Amino acid sequence: VKESYIKERTTIQANNPILIEGLPGLGLVGKIAIRYLIKQLKAEKVAYLYSPHFPYFVLVNKKGGVRLLRGAFYFVKTNGPNDLLLFTGDSQSQTIEGQYEIADTMLTFAKKHNVQVIVTIGGYRMEVEGKPKVIVAGTDEKTVNRAIQAGATVSENGSPIVGTAGLILGLARFQKIHALCMLGETRGYLPDPLAARSVIEVLQNLFGLPIDLAGIDTEIGKAEKIVVRLQKIEENQSAQAQETRKEEGKKTTYIS
Amino acid sequence: VKESYIKERTTIQANNPILIEGLPGLGLVGKIAIRYLIKQLKAEKVAYLYSPHFPYFVLVNKKGGVRLLRGAFYFVKTNGPNDLLLFTGDSQSQTIEGQYEIADTMLTFAKKHNVQVIVTIGGYRMEVEGKPKVIVAGTDEKTVNRAIQAGATVSENGSPIVGTAGLILGLARFQKIHALCMLGETRGYLPDPLAARSVIEVLQNLFGLPIDLAGIDTEIGKAEKIVVRLQKIEENQSAQAQETRKEEGKKTTYIS
Amino acid sequence: VKESYIKERTTIQANNPILIEGLPGLGLVGKIAIRYLIKQLKAEKVAYLYSPHFPYFVLVNKKGGVRLLRGAFYFVKTNGPNDLLLFTGDSQSQTIEGQYEIADTMLTFAKKHNVQVIVTIGGYRMEVEGKPKVIVAGTDEKTVNRAIQAGATVSENGSPIVGTAGLILGLARFQKIHALCMLGETRGYLPDPLAARSVIEVLQNLFGLPIDLAGIDTEIGKAEKIVVRLQKIEENQSAQAQETRKEEGKKTTYIS
Amino acid sequence: VKESYIKERTTIQANNPILIEGLPGLGLVGKIAIRYLIKQLKAEKVAYLYSPHFPYFVLVNKKGGVRLLRGAFYFVKTNGPNDLLLFTGDSQSQTIEGQYEIADTMLTFAKKHNVQVIVTIGGYRMEVEGKPKVIVAGTDEKTVNRAIQAGATVSENGSPIVGTAGLILGLARFQKIHALCMLGETRGYLPDPLAARSVIEVLQNLFGLPIDLAGIDTEIGKAEKIVVRLQKIEENQSAQAQETRKEEGKKTTYIS
Repeated sequence: VKESYIKERTTIQANNPILIEGLPGLGLVGKIAIRYLIKQLKAEKVAYLYSPHFPYFVLVNKKGGVRLLRGAFYFVKTNGPNDLLLFTGDSQSQTIEGQYEIADTMLTFAKKHNVQVIVTIGGYRMEVEGKPKVIVAGTDEKTVNRAIQAGATVSENGSPIVGTAGLILGLARFQKIHALCMLGETRGYLPDPLAARSVIEVLQNLFGLPIDLAGIDTEIGKAEKIVVRLQKIEENQSAQAQETRKEEGKKTTYIS
Repeated sequence: VKESYIKERTTIQANNPILIEGLPGLGLVGKIAIRYLIKQLKAEKVAYLYSPHFPYFVLVNKKGGVRLLRGAFYFVKTNGPNDLLLFTGDSQSQTIEGQYEIADTMLTFAKKHNVQVIVTIGGYRMEVEGKPKVIVAGTDEKTVNRAIQAGATVSENGSPIVGTAGLILGLARFQKIHALCMLGETRGYLPDPLAARSVIEVLQNLFGLPIDLAGIDTEIGKAEKIVVRLQKIEENQSAQAQETRKEEGKKTTYIS
Repeated sequence: VKESYIKERTTIQANNPILIEGLPGLGLVGKIAIRYLIKQLKAEKVAYLYSPHFPYFVLVNKKGGVRLLRGAFYFVKTNGPNDLLLFTGDSQSQTIEGQYEIADTMLTFAKKHNVQVIVTIGGYRMEVEGKPKVIVAGTDEKTVNRAIQAGATVSENGSPIVGTAGLILGLARFQKIHALCMLGETRGYLPDPLAARSVIEVLQNLFGLPIDLAGIDTEIGKAEKIVVRLQKIEENQSAQAQETRKEEGKKTTYIS
Repeated sequence: VKESYIKERTTIQANNPILIEGLPGLGLVGKIAIRYLIKQLKAEKVAYLYSPHFPYFVLVNKKGGVRLLRGAFYFVKTNGPNDLLLFTGDSQSQTIEGQYEIADTMLTFAKKHNVQVIVTIGGYRMEVEGKPKVIVAGTDEKTVNRAIQAGATVSENGSPIVGTAGLILGLARFQKIHALCMLGETRGYLPDPLAARSVIEVLQNLFGLPIDLAGIDTEIGKAEKIVVRLQKIEENQSAQAQETRKEEGKKTTYIS
């Protein structure tokens, strides 16, 4: 492991595949979306990406099993014109050069398997009210327009896209692969399945994916309960703090 | 993109060209100057410089189009003895080794195209009053003297030149290319077209470039209005702060 | 020394060896354990590991002798089915990439000498009361179970294992070597021979090592005396601080 | 300049040379000593060391001439059994790996020119009273003992030696070159020619160098005047601060 590399577990015959990527980032939008797609589409794990640019620790499971941080590719054979590759992982790279190298490694894998379009998923920081929008950017106007027709919108202020989700797009041109980035609006403090749901809906429209959204609605319900609980804790603390301040105010009055 | 490299978009036949470089830095002096030269001289974009040492994000335009951070070379065919190459970009390198590598990559390109002289442009921090001076440094006395005759001055305190503008000069010797660095005096807080103008004037004298300065004078006008507006905001804040302090002073008196 | 590498001092004929590793880390558990094993088993120093990723200083002994930071392999010829290799060193790597490179270098050495099992030793942060437990993790269930039968336990919360002790396990799979990590529970503030003792006991059971524990009990006694002394100093300081606060409380009363 | 390398300006015929090194560090002891030796021995500049691990700026002289940061080797042809090579430079490396690479590069040069002994010079932090001692460390006992006979002493507490002065010793073994490090005791806040003088004296005794110390005594005189001036400024400030505190003490009394 002196350089990032991909270890294939199975030989696959992918038919003009689409690759959808989502690593941990703002609101975990990308990782939540990909994990949901993997489960719903019963995708098969086909390859790992290892890199010395990931953080230097290993994960331990409940049985004491150990593994390196890594990314993983999953494969779905479809009846349509495009098979599906999904990618997620434990972490992004910790160094600048590692970010470029990992995005590069993924693209080499995509090219090898004749990937037609890459979609990267992430979060877009926003004080969201109501349903989160999906902000789209891409390597070419035609691909971006298809995403807009599927329900995404282009941002007017053009914030840069940081990390792997952005670099893959930037580098895709060199491999002549069309690529899109879809960012779900999120406050970004907590894992945000609602933002991931918005992205999945656009993906459904765009590629005609057969995805049942009931499961992610359950996740959203749970996430909302956590938020409500956290807000109550905060309100209590704030109320107590005010009470304390009042009390102290009285004391100060006595002193003066 | 495992190493910095240059991607040529067009094959050019450059006749003993001069290369003028200006990346983002103090007061954006270099970048403003180069962008103005590109516009005025109707230079053609001929090559890109990519590097894994640039920051790891991509830029998004208003149509949702995405691109990597990069530098770009522009070309101007002249009637004189020297054609012109211009270079600017989005960012400097984020690492020490990247700074050396990028300067090196630019010099290899310069050598390939038989560049005779390189001029790098930057800002020189100074509490400027009136017209900013242009501080010059160079690889050899003869080239520096030509710049002095064209209106530049040598600094007496000899501050080091940080970043690409400096390293290119340091490395140019190994390629046997004469090189100059021209630093426009600037306070450096805000984009400073006035400092860029001073540098362009020296370049005009030095190389007999046919540049109309009306456009940059408009930019200078706008920049000055911004400065005036910022100063007013600051004065108001300062006045308010003083007022507040007076008020609080009274209160304190009551309390004592 | 442009890359990490191993310099062998003696050619060894190791019979299906077990490699046990312990570098400086939490509570120095790994280093204390390995040093004790080296002494008790009269292990012979057979190879050094050098790396440009170690910190850039050299150590000086009392006679003014100087040496680079390094790791060292020790060898024990046994009568049993497995000979023993022990590894410890001055420091862990200071960079992410160095952590991967050093673990990789050690594994190449292990493979070359036909190592059957690797055990890495470290500390596990815990407010220990009584005898420290040994937390185990490993590359495969069978090896983990052997360690559990020898007295180790699996952690329920599955904290990641940071540094060389963890990465070696993560990378061992690629070399098809079974590997275990044993972490002695420790508060981690001070060198903790008691935690090291727990680990050594499990190793004894696991591999039938003939180790006399009297020596480490002496170390534990000394370490406990240091802790008691530090606690007294702390209590005194705390008592003084309280006293001071009381006194100041009185003064404040006078002032008001 | 993708890797550190040495550019020889002249071909030299060095007879069993001794190499003495001193880069900027604590109290600038090493650099001051080497510069004095260069001047006194009329050494000739024979080679440069360039590296992308030096800081990324260039130096500018009063005529506007520019150069990269670098190290430089100087040569002295002697009548004795050993010619002399001297090395100093503008800066140490800014990265761990660069520190190793630069020390390595110097050693390759030393080996090529058949260097017999290397001496590195630095500072040793100490609240010095009277004449600074010279602390010595080395690759082997015999070489250390020669230095002790020449007036140096071995430190009892064995502090590590940080940076190039230390790494060269650590790496010299691999090239089978004897090496010494001589550290002049210094408070380290300011350039310290007095500490450099102590080191030069030991070098004189050790190698029989014909060095007139009058020049460095002048430097020491100047340095002492600077220290006295700084102390007066400090005392004044301290006295003023006390005065202010007294005044404020009075005010507080009025208020209470």
